[in-house]
Order: sequence, then C-alpha cells, then structure tokens
Amino acid sequence: MNSLGITLTTDFGDCSPYVAAMKGVILSIHPAVRLFDLSHAIPPQDIRHAAHFLAAAIPYFPPGLIHVVVVDPGVGSDRALLYVEVAGHRLLVPDNGCWTRIPSGDQPPLVRRLTERRFWRPTVSATFHGRDILAPVAAHLSLGIDPALLGPVVDEWVRLPSPPLRQEPDRMVGEVAFIDHFGNLITNIPGEALPIGPLRISVAGRQLTGMVRTYADAPAGTLVALVSSQGTLEIAVVQGNAARTLGVRVGEMVEVSASSD
Amino acid sequence: MNSLGITLTTDFGDCSPYVAAMKGVILSIHPAVRLFDLSHAIPPQDIRHAAHFLAAAIPYFPPGLIHVVVVDPGVGSDRALLYVEVAGHRLLVPDNGCWTRIPSGDQPPLVRRLTERRFWRPTVSATFHGRDILAPVAAHLSLGIDPALLGPVVDEWVRLPSPPLRQEPDRMVGEVAFIDHFGNLITNIPGEALPIGPLRISVAGRQLTGMVRTYADAPAGTLVALVSSQGTLEIAVVQGNAARTLGVRVGEMVEVSASSD
Amino acid sequence: MNSLGITLTTDFGDCSPYVAAMKGVILSIHPAVRLFDLSHAIPPQDIRHAAHFLAAAIPYFPPGLIHVVVVDPGVGSDRALLYVEVAGHRLLVPDNGCWTRIPSGDQPPLVRRLTERRFWRPTVSATFHGRDILAPVAAHLSLGIDPALLGPVVDEWVRLPSPPLRQEPDRMVGEVAFIDHFGNLITNIPGEALPIGPLRISVAGRQLTGMVRTYADAPAGTLVALVSSQGTLEIAVVQGNAARTLGVRVGEMVEVSASSD
Repeated sequence: MNSLGITLTTDFGDCSPYVAAMKGVILSIHPAVRLFDLSHAIPPQDIRHAAHFLAAAIPYFPPGLIHVVVVDPGVGSDRALLYVEVAGHRLLVPDNGCWTRIPSGDQPPLVRRLTERRFWRPTVSATFHGRDILAPVAAHLSLGIDPALLGPVVDEWVRLPSPPLRQEPDRMVGEVAFIDHFGNLITNIPGEALPIGPLRISVAGRQLTGMVRTYADAPAGTLVALVSSQGTLEIAVVQGNAARTLGVRVGEMVEVSASSD
Repeated sequence: MNSLGITLTTDFGDCSPYVAAMKGVILSIHPAVRLFDLSHAIPPQDIRHAAHFLAAAIPYFPPGLIHVVVVDPGVGSDRALLYVEVAGHRLLVPDNGCWTRIPSGDQPPLVRRLTERRFWRPTVSATFHGRDILAPVAAHLSLGIDPALLGPVVDEWVRLPSPPLRQEPDRMVGEVAFIDHFGNLITNIPGEALPIGPLRISVAGRQLTGMVRTYADAPAGTLVALVSSQGTLEIAVVQGNAARTLGVRVGEMVEVSASSD
Repeated sequence: MNSLGITLTTDFGDCSPYVAAMKGVILSIHPAVRLFDLSHAIPPQDIRHAAHFLAAAIPYFPPGLIHVVVVDPGVGSDRALLYVEVAGHRLLVPDNGCWTRIPSGDQPPLVRRLTERRFWRPTVSATFHGRDILAPVAAHLSLGIDPALLGPVVDEWVRLPSPPLRQEPDRMVGEVAFIDHFGNLITNIPGEALPIGPLRISVAGRQLTGMVRTYADAPAGTLVALVSSQGTLEIAVVQGNAARTLGVRVGEMVEVSASSD
C-alpha cells in the first residue's frame, strides 16, 4: 500500500522542540515523505479532546495516510503503543482510547501492538515515545512495509466511553463534548434525533427557545442553538465566545425538550 | 494553468479539528497536492486583521498557488463565496472584503461567484463552508479545472474601506492598521510620504521626535518610530511590546508633523 | 548537493504575516521546494530559547535540509547573517549564537558571512532580513548553488555560553536550561553524570529525594525528577506544570547531591 504521507497530531505545543525532533526522525528514514500538521495544540494530556478532534477530522481524509497521534500521559509505563486500521484509516497511537471515537463503519478495527524494536530508534527514552517509536514506525510504514511486521494483532484495547446521552420521548439529556477555538459548545446530542417542533434548550442555567440555521441568523452577542458542522447540537454566541460567556467546560449537562409554548 | 499547491489562512486556531478536516477534504480530491499553512491564528471573525495579513503576504507568492481564506462570520447566510484573480494571484474567499487590500496592479480583479455545486461536497453544512465548499473547490482548481466552470463573473463585491489617512502639507493623520505578534504598531502612513526633516509623531498621548532606521538603533525599552518592512510608519518598543506599553489597539490615531525644533 | 527542503524556525507567531511572506519569497525562487515548519512560537527575541530548541531538534534531521532561523533582535544592525555547516547540518542564521549549542561532532563548524547581494531580494528592508535575505538565500541553496558563492568564510562568530554547571565529587550545581510547553524544567545537568545511589535534588526551595523513570511512575500532581528525553535531569509535575507550580524560570539554580539517607 503506497503512502500519501504522514499527519501529526500532538499536545506538544509550538514552542517546544518535540514536534521538530519527530519530523527530523521521520525525514531521516524517509526523506521524500510528505508531512502534514493537524494540530500541536491538543491541551496537555487531554485524551478526551484528542478523541473528539480525531473523530471530527480523520473521516475526511483519504485512505493511504498514516496518522500519528501523541497525546500520551502514560508514556514510558506499560501502556501499549498501537497500529490501528479503522474505516480504512491507519493510525499510530498510544493505547489510551484517543482513537476509539472514530466511526468504524461496518468493519471492526484491526489493531496491532507495536513490539518489533527493529523499526524503533536504537535507544528508546522513557519519556518521548513519539520520537523514539511512533515517528520511526510511521516512516517505515510510509515506505511500504507490511504492518504485520510491527507486532501481533490484539483484541483488547482501551476504549474511551462516549459522553452519556439519555433519550426520552420528549426530552434528551447530553453534555458539552467539545469546546472549539471560538468557544462554541459542541454537544453529543445528534441533530437528527432532536424532537420535532418547538424546542427548549437548557445549559448552565440558561434557557434557549428554538434553533437557528447559522450564526448569521441572529445579531452579534446572541446566544443561539444550531446543528453543528459535525451534525450535533451546538450552542454558540454569535461573534462571541459561548464557553466564556456561560462559564462552561467540557462535560456540562445540556437538556433539550419539546417546548410547551 | 498548473497548480503549485494550496495555501490555507483561517481563524480556526490550532486546537479545533476544522483545519484538519479541510486538509482531509482537499487530499481526498487531489492526493498529491501540496499544502501550505499561512496562518490559523487570525483573531476570530476579524476581517480587518485578515485583510492586512493577506495584503502583507500574498504579493510575495508566485502565481500558480490557490489561496484559501476562511475568516467568515457570515457563513451560511446569503453572503457569496468568491473565486478571485488579483495581480496574478488566485484566491477563494468569503465575500466580506478580506482580499480587497491586496494591491491589484494595473489589471482590475476578476471575480466569480461560486455557484456550481458539482465541485462542492454533496452535503453542505450551514456553518462550515470552508470544509464543504472552499476546500473541494480549491482541490478541483489545483487539478487544473477552468475557473470559468465555478460560476459567473460578478462585478459587485464587498470592499473593505482603507483606514482613513489625511495628508496636509506639513502634517499627516493616519491610524494603527495592524498590530503584529511583537506588539509593533504598523500604521497606514506611507513611509515615502513622510515630511522631510525632523518629525514629531504622536500616538496615544505620547510624543516621539525623529525616526530610527531599525530596532537595534536604540536601547531596549525605547519607544521608537521607523519605516516598517511593509513600507509604512511603524511604532515599536525595542525588544518590548508597544501595543501593551501604550495600551493601543487597531484604529488608534497616529499623527506626524514636521517638527518645529 | 541536492536539497530535501527548507525548515523554518522563527519568533514571528502565527497571527503575523511574516512567516507567510517568507514562504512566498522562497516559493517564488524555487516553486517545487518542500517547506517544513519547525516552530513560529520561539518567545520574541529569546535567543537562549532558540538555542536550546535548535540543539534539541536539529541533530535528528538528515543532512540535506536547509534550516532557516529568524530570531533576530539585532536585525538591521551590523550583526552578520551566517551560512553555517555544523555536524552535517546547514543553517542560515543571524550571528547571535542561536546555533552554537548544536553539538558539532569532531569537525569544526564551517561558517560563511552572507555578503553576496545577488542572492538577496533587490530591496532589503531594515527590519525584515528573514524575508529579504535569509529566505531568498535558502531558496537559492535549495536549488543547488555552491555555498561558497554566498560570502567569505569567517572564523569569528558569536558564541552563546552554556549555562554554568559545577561538578564536585558528590554534588552538582546546574540550572533550568529550558522550560517546555508542559512546564517541565529541563536542566543542563547530564543524566549520565548524576551521582550513583540515592539523590537529593533541590530547586526553588523544594527538595526531591530520588528519581523516577517516567511520569507515570508517580501519581498525578507529584513533583518528580527524571532523566529527560534530551538526556539531562528534568523536574516535572506529573500531569501538571512544574514551572507554574514552583514559580520557576529559565536560569533557576538546581542542585543535586548524594543523599545521606
């Protein structure tokens, strides 16, 4: 399988030399490979943030890329490192569940534990497996090696539970699953499952009545509810920051009910 | 026209999955295309910032790239999306004036409204036209399709007025047009139009007398005026942050007069 | 010598148009070149930060890339701009010592002063030599020109002194040499030089006894000492931010002694 290149998603930030070191290791093994930065601003050690990020981004990529993810609070412990094939996408990840919200389609994921040290850097540090294991393995994969050489198939891995969602006939209770750069609150309540007719939406002690189609449907500063670009209920302040305005964090409860008005 | 690749300029920030989703969409249509990040740190919905950014950056590129800009407070409304050719550069932008400060040279811009849905993603969300329209159109353009297929030529578009500039024989009044990452104040007062001889410069209640050639011409911490790398009057604190020191924002008045000393 | 591409390391931040302008200049001269962002978040004018960054990143790259570094408080003054070959790596840098902590191996560095204006932009501003000199020179180098054409070999350049390190039989005194994005304190005390047996480590009035192998060896919130991925003593708060917790900056003294326990 030919490789289109390698993507990088980390919590390393831009001021540290860690992303650069990974790029150097990759280019040392496969000098012609293409590299794509997805994000280096995953909040430190925030596996839930990474999980939402990957679920919202990876499905848009064609097969044939190798997605390296380094959000790894367990680095150096006995947590495994994994090669994953899910819905045609190939990832290299720590076994902490960060990839498990990517929709898997009709085929179950294929998961291998990385055990074959010949594809790693000769010396492996205790605190930077991104540079010492994932980067060189990604480079070798991009050169076309058979993933079966990386290590054995496993059928146990860490799964990140989905945020809780309760559906009753006229009422849904979910939560804020992600807060984006604009401060928009992306919930886990599916847009197509919303009750038909007038709605009442509650979050952080505030009530909204009804939905808009897009931000521009209400004046700047208005608190609105809409269906997000990911297909779920979103709460936003038009040209403002809903997370800051409402003082809300990921995990905040959101309730939707049919309005009696 | 062969394509050198696609550049991306957005206000999406680095922690959100939106830039990654756009890269995935582009690579799905044109797997071999080259991608260049220009910035994902345009302040949210700040069209003026984007306009200055593009005017200061795009002229340095060769023709043959496609520049995608997503700073789009009007997403999902009836604002148009545009294909623009200006001074040999090709852009895909929301019709909010963000591109209209790029110097157009002797040829008027050629502008098309994007109407041909066959180059879009099959489902278009109401809040993410960057992913659903601009990214796929950019990918198709980079594959060499004729821009005429994208939609009709239009001769009306939003123009962002230039910041006001008043020139009198011995006096110019302009404003801070941009504040860069260092806190340097980039004004709209052209360097070549400055009165000859000793100058007095006023900003935010502070007076400067005379200009320096570069930052290193004065000790750290000094408030200085100089000609910016963009050719306009700039006010800086040597190895410091003028915006923070003076408490100044974009739009602050700046006055230059011939000094009577 | 064929080029694998050009890397960019700057203190320009992501909201300013300066990185984009440099990419445009490079692509105008060498449209097919590959560009790699290493960092644009070096703290403004922080040469020490850049020096640590480069020392921790550049050695991982293969030869054949051109590394452009723009952290340049002396821009426009009579400080030189340099072409450097060190340990097989090629850099273009301001002469401020930022590259001088890259291990040079057994060969002394080869250093040229950039003097040949035919490889520069026709007009050189006083405040943006990254765009006007380093970017075009990098592009020409990536096209294969002989570095000898750039300017004469020099044998004097600014050296950044290493942070002080005092070794006594049972005691080492060094300092915090770098603080990474996680707030981990990377010291200049070599891991292999640590006294054998139980250790006592002091920093900012806090005492640590003993080392861990990796972050996951202690509960979240614990202050720990370990050997960093760069091989030196590191002080970290597990899943926390040691710099913030201890209120420590680069240059803070760190002392290690054999524990009498």
